[in-house]
Amino acid sequence: MQLFRFGPRGHEQPGVRTAAGQRLDVSAFGEDYHEAFFATDGPVRLAAWLGPHAAQCPEVPAEARLGSCVARPSKIVCIGLNYRDHSAETGLGLPTEPVFFLKATSALCGPHDDVVLPRGAEKLDWEAELAFVIGKLASYVAEADALGHIAGYTILNDYSERAHQLERGGQWTKGKSADTFAPLGPYLTLAADVPDPENLRIWLTVNGATKQEATTADLVFGLAKIISYVSEFMTLLPGDVISTGSPAGTGMGLHPPQYLRAGDVVALGIEGLGEQRQRVAAFPG
Amino acid sequence: MQLFRFGPRGHEQPGVRTAAGQRLDVSAFGEDYHEAFFATDGPVRLAAWLGPHAAQCPEVPAEARLGSCVARPSKIVCIGLNYRDHSAETGLGLPTEPVFFLKATSALCGPHDDVVLPRGAEKLDWEAELAFVIGKLASYVAEADALGHIAGYTILNDYSERAHQLERGGQWTKGKSADTFAPLGPYLTLAADVPDPENLRIWLTVNGATKQEATTADLVFGLAKIISYVSEFMTLLPGDVISTGSPAGTGMGLHPPQYLRAGDVVALGIEGLGEQRQRVAAFPG
Repeated sequence: MQLFRFGPRGHEQPGVRTAAGQRLDVSAFGEDYHEAFFATDGPVRLAAWLGPHAAQCPEVPAEARLGSCVARPSKIVCIGLNYRDHSAETGLGLPTEPVFFLKATSALCGPHDDVVLPRGAEKLDWEAELAFVIGKLASYVAEADALGHIAGYTILNDYSERAHQLERGGQWTKGKSADTFAPLGPYLTLAADVPDPENLRIWLTVNGATKQEATTADLVFGLAKIISYVSEFMTLLPGDVISTGSPAGTGMGLHPPQYLRAGDVVALGIEGLGEQRQRVAAFPG
Repeated sequence: MQLFRFGPRGHEQPGVRTAAGQRLDVSAFGEDYHEAFFATDGPVRLAAWLGPHAAQCPEVPAEARLGSCVARPSKIVCIGLNYRDHSAETGLGLPTEPVFFLKATSALCGPHDDVVLPRGAEKLDWEAELAFVIGKLASYVAEADALGHIAGYTILNDYSERAHQLERGGQWTKGKSADTFAPLGPYLTLAADVPDPENLRIWLTVNGATKQEATTADLVFGLAKIISYVSEFMTLLPGDVISTGSPAGTGMGLHPPQYLRAGDVVALGIEGLGEQRQRVAAFPG
């Protein structure tokens, strides 16, 4: 089962994509995919509800806009420098323990929404990432117990304005949090349907040319380690998003560096989890 | 008018402290102090409601626990190194433009709750700060228009585990986001009642000994600059908290450094905004 949200920005409704590929409007279930949903075994309850109600659920029109696949979480935790080859290309070196930062949740948007250039931005960069959503509260979780805290998997394009991130006086969040810098989705694929999340092909293209092509098997710190580690420093709440870092092939790693301009088209995907596509839009006004 | 929240953790109810110092339970108003409240002129509507209803509002018992004075915001933005003397004591130097980071909102707690030592923590430090709450959405706001985006003022003790912040591989949020690291309150004093927020005495004591004693007149970057600057990098939503940085006298700045241990008592206050008091509790278990 895959969860998604559709409709106008700020007014999204919950949907379910069935194993057969049907996309159902499940707004009659009465809950959005937010903290309370995940905290109360929402996916299990929704699946049980769907049995007797699927036949009455309208299909979601193919042209419907998709929103972020989860409603606004308490936080988005992003792991940095978590692929060996990307660490090398940034020149920042391989971390001895996970590096992470918070991305403002106001940056969330749908997987096919335009990414909007911040005012004056000259170094907009892409980062295809495997992300997951927390299914139950995690605080000081042992690695052995960690994977049970994952509700499901999805895709985040961790857009970054490199000058804002690295040349404006410290703390990466400054270049990670602009509106539309966190397209999330299209689907949250429930954990039970992703038997081997650390062995998925991940790719990204810009204007059709492949930039990132890797496998999540190359993560420096795996999913259990990430959850256990982050949960030592902050409590992860149901619905929270953790993004696991990006492989080599970001714009800043190219020679010379290549950054996005208005009109460029970024497409990305992860095996089994779907695809995203964003057009780069100029700063309005 | 001052807003506060009271009751058991996670089940707080809204309260109002009147100009006469009476503390009223305004749960009958039907709204908590969250994004939607601030986005719809909540303080104005609440004041209007209070006129005919104050007489029927129960008083809040003196012994009631206070919670964070606002319900969980989308983000807490903290400005770093924003007092000249604190920048000097950290050895990090005076920034040429504001430095900021995000503190996980799961760290929020009441102004008199215990601060709990993270597991193995040896460098728990205090930071008394003037904080404010955003009253209306702010994106690319000019300095001249910035102050109109403030709903009110309060106090944040920006607790920091310095080893986690500075010695664990990057990004300050790692040492800023543990549970109970963000006591906020006791009151949100509405902006109209704080005529000169950049000229307030701010102080902090540990076990009765004065550690911080300063004035917000010494902020490096003032309130209008902070709002305008941060709003270039991320959209500030109604209810969001911005904390303006701490003056000299943090534990890391002392010679030798002094960090908090279980049983220590931290008290702090800002002229006109109230006082906080936290006991340091050992890591449970």
